Amino acid sequence: MSDIKKVVLAYSGGLDTSVIVKWLQETYACEVVTFTADIGQGEEVEPARAKAQALGVKEIYIEDLREEFVRDYVYPMFRANTIYEGEYLLGTSIARPLIAKRLIEIANETGADAISHGATGKGNDQVRFELGAYALKPGVKVIAPWREWDLTSREKLMNYCEEHQIPVDFSKSKKKSPYSMDANLLHISYEGGILEDPWAEAEEEMWRWSVSPEEAPDTPTYLELTFEKGDVVAIDGERLKPHEVLAKLNQLGGDNGVGRLDIVENRYVGMKSRGCYETPGGTILLRAHRAIESITLDREAAHLKDELMPKYAKTIYNGYWWSPERRMLQAAIDETQTFVNGVVRVKLYKGSATVVGRKSEQSLFDESIATFEDDAGAYDQKDAEGFIKLNALRLRIAAGKGRSAS
Amino acid sequence: MSDIKKVVLAYSGGLDTSVIVKWLQETYACEVVTFTADIGQGEEVEPARAKAQALGVKEIYIEDLREEFVRDYVYPMFRANTIYEGEYLLGTSIARPLIAKRLIEIANETGADAISHGATGKGNDQVRFELGAYALKPGVKVIAPWREWDLTSREKLMNYCEEHQIPVDFSKSKKKSPYSMDANLLHISYEGGILEDPWAEAEEEMWRWSVSPEEAPDTPTYLELTFEKGDVVAIDGERLKPHEVLAKLNQLGGDNGVGRLDIVENRYVGMKSRGCYETPGGTILLRAHRAIESITLDREAAHLKDELMPKYAKTIYNGYWWSPERRMLQAAIDETQTFVNGVVRVKLYKGSATVVGRKSEQSLFDESIATFEDDAGAYDQKDAEGFIKLNALRLRIAAGKGRSAS
Amino acid sequence: MSDIKKVVLAYSGGLDTSVIVKWLQETYACEVVTFTADIGQGEEVEPARAKAQALGVKEIYIEDLREEFVRDYVYPMFRANTIYEGEYLLGTSIARPLIAKRLIEIANETGADAISHGATGKGNDQVRFELGAYALKPGVKVIAPWREWDLTSREKLMNYCEEHQIPVDFSKSKKKSPYSMDANLLHISYEGGILEDPWAEAEEEMWRWSVSPEEAPDTPTYLELTFEKGDVVAIDGERLKPHEVLAKLNQLGGDNGVGRLDIVENRYVGMKSRGCYETPGGTILLRAHRAIESITLDREAAHLKDELMPKYAKTIYNGYWWSPERRMLQAAIDETQTFVNGVVRVKLYKGSATVVGRKSEQSLFDESIATFEDDAGAYDQKDAEGFIKLNALRLRIAAGKGRSAS
Amino acid sequence: MSDIKKVVLAYSGGLDTSVIVKWLQETYACEVVTFTADIGQGEEVEPARAKAQALGVKEIYIEDLREEFVRDYVYPMFRANTIYEGEYLLGTSIARPLIAKRLIEIANETGADAISHGATGKGNDQVRFELGAYALKPGVKVIAPWREWDLTSREKLMNYCEEHQIPVDFSKSKKKSPYSMDANLLHISYEGGILEDPWAEAEEEMWRWSVSPEEAPDTPTYLELTFEKGDVVAIDGERLKPHEVLAKLNQLGGDNGVGRLDIVENRYVGMKSRGCYETPGGTILLRAHRAIESITLDREAAHLKDELMPKYAKTIYNGYWWSPERRMLQAAIDETQTFVNGVVRVKLYKGSATVVGRKSEQSLFDESIATFEDDAGAYDQKDAEGFIKLNALRLRIAAGKGRSAS
Repeated sequence: MSDIKKVVLAYSGGLDTSVIVKWLQETYACEVVTFTADIGQGEEVEPARAKAQALGVKEIYIEDLREEFVRDYVYPMFRANTIYEGEYLLGTSIARPLIAKRLIEIANETGADAISHGATGKGNDQVRFELGAYALKPGVKVIAPWREWDLTSREKLMNYCEEHQIPVDFSKSKKKSPYSMDANLLHISYEGGILEDPWAEAEEEMWRWSVSPEEAPDTPTYLELTFEKGDVVAIDGERLKPHEVLAKLNQLGGDNGVGRLDIVENRYVGMKSRGCYETPGGTILLRAHRAIESITLDREAAHLKDELMPKYAKTIYNGYWWSPERRMLQAAIDETQTFVNGVVRVKLYKGSATVVGRKSEQSLFDESIATFEDDAGAYDQKDAEGFIKLNALRLRIAAGKGRSAS
Repeated sequence: MSDIKKVVLAYSGGLDTSVIVKWLQETYACEVVTFTADIGQGEEVEPARAKAQALGVKEIYIEDLREEFVRDYVYPMFRANTIYEGEYLLGTSIARPLIAKRLIEIANETGADAISHGATGKGNDQVRFELGAYALKPGVKVIAPWREWDLTSREKLMNYCEEHQIPVDFSKSKKKSPYSMDANLLHISYEGGILEDPWAEAEEEMWRWSVSPEEAPDTPTYLELTFEKGDVVAIDGERLKPHEVLAKLNQLGGDNGVGRLDIVENRYVGMKSRGCYETPGGTILLRAHRAIESITLDREAAHLKDELMPKYAKTIYNGYWWSPERRMLQAAIDETQTFVNGVVRVKLYKGSATVVGRKSEQSLFDESIATFEDDAGAYDQKDAEGFIKLNALRLRIAAGKGRSAS
Repeated sequence: MSDIKKVVLAYSGGLDTSVIVKWLQETYACEVVTFTADIGQGEEVEPARAKAQALGVKEIYIEDLREEFVRDYVYPMFRANTIYEGEYLLGTSIARPLIAKRLIEIANETGADAISHGATGKGNDQVRFELGAYALKPGVKVIAPWREWDLTSREKLMNYCEEHQIPVDFSKSKKKSPYSMDANLLHISYEGGILEDPWAEAEEEMWRWSVSPEEAPDTPTYLELTFEKGDVVAIDGERLKPHEVLAKLNQLGGDNGVGRLDIVENRYVGMKSRGCYETPGGTILLRAHRAIESITLDREAAHLKDELMPKYAKTIYNGYWWSPERRMLQAAIDETQTFVNGVVRVKLYKGSATVVGRKSEQSLFDESIATFEDDAGAYDQKDAEGFIKLNALRLRIAAGKGRSAS
Repeated sequence: MSDIKKVVLAYSGGLDTSVIVKWLQETYACEVVTFTADIGQGEEVEPARAKAQALGVKEIYIEDLREEFVRDYVYPMFRANTIYEGEYLLGTSIARPLIAKRLIEIANETGADAISHGATGKGNDQVRFELGAYALKPGVKVIAPWREWDLTSREKLMNYCEEHQIPVDFSKSKKKSPYSMDANLLHISYEGGILEDPWAEAEEEMWRWSVSPEEAPDTPTYLELTFEKGDVVAIDGERLKPHEVLAKLNQLGGDNGVGRLDIVENRYVGMKSRGCYETPGGTILLRAHRAIESITLDREAAHLKDELMPKYAKTIYNGYWWSPERRMLQAAIDETQTFVNGVVRVKLYKGSATVVGRKSEQSLFDESIATFEDDAGAYDQKDAEGFIKLNALRLRIAAGKGRSAS
């Protein structure tokens, strides 16, 4: 253990990672560099500075990564209409590669030989942090205290704090939530507590970002999203940066009870787990992106995207953002977005985000062909006969040879 | 044209197919057999008898296919969590194979050498009817009047009716709807009219099966769905047949504004078209089926299902129900449903169907492993290190050889 | 028919397309522009000039497209290790998009409003020519004489020649082959004749590009292929252009009886057909490309390529080179080839092309890890336990809940 | 370590597993049950009895599993035309699930609480054994000595033998091969030694099952394989059991130099490794199976099989035979084989296995349609125009909206 000289820790400023600072210093006799990032979790990051200093940390990194997070991670992911297991918008998963990348960059800057994080040994986040770290710096050492130490209960942790004079009021900011939570600009998640029974309905007071549909306004909110190359660049005509778009959509969505999700998902480490999520802006984004694609994207490109999407989602969920297969899929996805430009009109109402209109100068919707009215010869209905006949040929031959189709 | 002796027509009893009866008799000098099926479209089918008789039809088939429709077509499709292009629940597509099958069976019974239908030459339905027919009876002749005749405007059709004494009050039952509609137990669809502009929001009065979310009750409705082998067999503990389940869910969903959809989709014949759909029961079914699978289905089987689903959906959408590839996919899907048993609790509220609980005696959710609390050794967190290390190995080797991951 | 003023014809200089020149002039009263390309079919193209002139053609295009063909079509396709239905190297399919593109470019240059080709109505080539043409010039008219005229037998064709004074000795150059053949730098194909019986073995005298394995030299030939970004750039150290590489490999392969193939394939138009192919160079290329990828490509990228390949092959086979889905797949494939550099050593011997060595400065093969000898700690075998344990977790939970795995 | 009372060991009778017997007895103070199976590796298994007895083993299982191996594992795998990474026929992979199953069954019979094997911590086999074991008996303990002990060099192993009086002439039967080898009815594999340099050509003396192509007979061997439901049931008309078929094909193939392979493959544990394989019978089987499918299988089913195959191959390679996803894929594959009946004629000559004919009573090849001669109206060439026009529609609309296809 004495090999490690300096370790960069993903530091939230909360109780657990504060304990980790002390434990690393003590266990590995190494210097600790803290890294705290604002990725839109909704808590101040600056207070982490004083806390880290109090723990004797000399190199303290505190950064606002909100713009980079949405521009380079969330937006590329939404170009693929990404959903894991039909439901989950990957709010936690997509933040990890950026944290991993900064941890490694800071390790390189500070000459650290190790990184550390506060993720447990049962979850996906450890995998995401560490795969990213190894992919970016293959010789880095990784210290995952939750897999190593014996502070396996809240009581032991508290005792450790007392012994090491770590102020425990740290935890009060979290209001003793019974849930394990994680938040960033894309979502807030809840696990644990009564959620460990998949039959139990989540309590109303658990949700933090959205009003309940019942409490949402009785009149709908309409908004128009402008897309350029698959990304939203304006809301109601106002041009915004990616993270501003997402923040605005979170507020509008949350006000209308949009984006709550309650699922049981399959973790990469092999177990099923119950999670509740609030993703107001992401829920709107996904719907709207599909809608703008519906008029601007070629059918076969759209279908191929749909076929590749589960693989892409799994790649991100499992922590392989920094992998050749993710880059390969991204290349295919991005190639399709050149003409995904236009405006989508969305209605928010008591928990629903509904697309009610879409338009684009690059639209492939051709009224003159699709119309039920006279199309003035734009489409020759007689072509359909040959189309069907040849598509049926293999089926007819098989049936003609006595193979029953039913 | 003189070759055809007898043709079985998919006959709705409406104006268009009544014209077709006459046109077939006249153009092909052949006998017409009518086939009218109740698949839950919500209109009486018995009146079609008198209308057909009035047109001189001697062999009249009128059948209640609701149970077969839901049991053998809708339910198998929902086992795959089938959605076309991320949105569409395939309400029209899934009814066509059954109609095609009965058309052919009746052709065989009555010695007919041809079938006919009232689908236009621009749509998907002609393809679905005809591929099914050819797959089941390779030598059958198909007459698609809309691709052949010159009655290309409403005016010409009306003149034809007058000339041939076809009572036009037939059409009054449809209230001169500006929309082209199709309905069965799974959904009702709307196309045409103002919907031909994808930017125009659908009018509230268009929707027929559901109240608007705004008009829905202010208190939520909860229901419990019991699954056996992937199929719903009971609602709130009451055992029902498949078509009764769907009818009940349609009513409950519709009352709560659930299941409206407004999309632009890609037709098999190559154009994009705008469609609005109400699928109240199907929307609930899909959500609930995913939820019961979330606790009973193996992760990799679930993921493989998700990867195959777009292909399966496309197969059905394009009209290839009666094909080897559909059977092949169905075999894979059905193989996974053995343990998809249990109960899902759903909340309906002003347009949303939300899963709030799920339980199963075959649940793979294991609290003792997933818990944030002490798991008494059920899971060894130290295993995660080796898991991550070997999963990272290929990434580390590449990075070690100087390949940048970012 | 009188609408068409000028048509560009894909003109081989052979009998059939000479008849087409005349038939077009006569039937459509239009001007004909001929386009003859050398894509390595092994016949002089210049003689087509005099023949076209004799038929009254004023605008005659004769071009050497060999370099463009291999560089922009064959090479990109081989990056994907493309094979259709497990066997076919797509020799005919890959030449069509280039012909279609030049036909359209010439149409634009000459102000022609139509294109024409000599492909029959039963085959894939008509589809490939026409899909390409429509994708590149949506309003172009296409004339496919074989689908229109009544010259449906050789006798009628000969009579037509006599009536129109078309010299029939044209056909003598083809030595009255009983086979329908097509050739370019990638392959030569044979269809028809006794091959129409799939049980009949092809006659030895049919094959034109390769000696029989039995006649091939008794000593093997070794060669070394140098790859850069997935493409062969040198043979035995000699730097060559793409088409020179392929020509050289055809010669070496053919001399050693390499590259014969005898299959039944599924055409896009719905029927099965028997074809024999000689693809000496392509067979070597495919083997060698897989080998260089085996040491330079990441596992998951390689597997994803393998999963996408059948779709990519089908896209090309069916004629969709000029489509969004092909570009999308190409983007994914090309993204992976950056590090596919190195040298592969191949042994040719009596019909076989076998890889016997591969090396690369970008190799991911790491002897220090893979060795059966002591690896000095490069790989910790104990990691495997955790890797297996967590990968087994879902299976163990299922088994623990009483689900039988067998 | 004292928990384990009895362990079932996969025992070859060779030196390494003999050491393991002793090491297990000593280290775990437990009883060892040996299990030795004949799966066609070409060595007597009965001598293992005396060796085990000499080591103090009381419960000795020696079994002939050749028929079960080929019938229930090899044959189902070949129905999918399974190849890993474009080359490898999975000879080692497919034998492991059967061994795992028998280990667990014997553990259940003998009341053992653990299993053990002689696979190293770097390879795939440990994963395959253990995933199988866990899937079939979730609470089983697994002892992998190579991951635990310190006998990490040949020298230490020899010392251990001397100390424990294990007769080392055991190893002489292996002729001090420099290669790590594995054999069963499907193949023999070679790793290590000079093969650790991927540029080095394998020595001729390494290969054991096949003559070199150069030494093979100068005249070809023809054979006819009869298929029923995708499986070979007869050779040259002689009905044989599955393992007899494979043995016969191995002999015929080996005599003609067929089935040698030299590749670098990607292991599941994350490294690349060089392997040489001889799979004479399997190479013939694969070719022949594709050929019988080419005339009996529907196009879309065949293509879907091709798209699923890489996933299926990976599932087996990685050790997930006993998994829901393998069963799911198998269900899809098996569903397609009903009509895969007929005869394939194969020519073996100096390293090549070439299909030269195929016939079937269930053939979908229809000469009357495919013919270049007059088809008497079986196929209407005019249908092709509509087929192409509608398939081109989306491309034309895009081009018409100014999107360049090139």
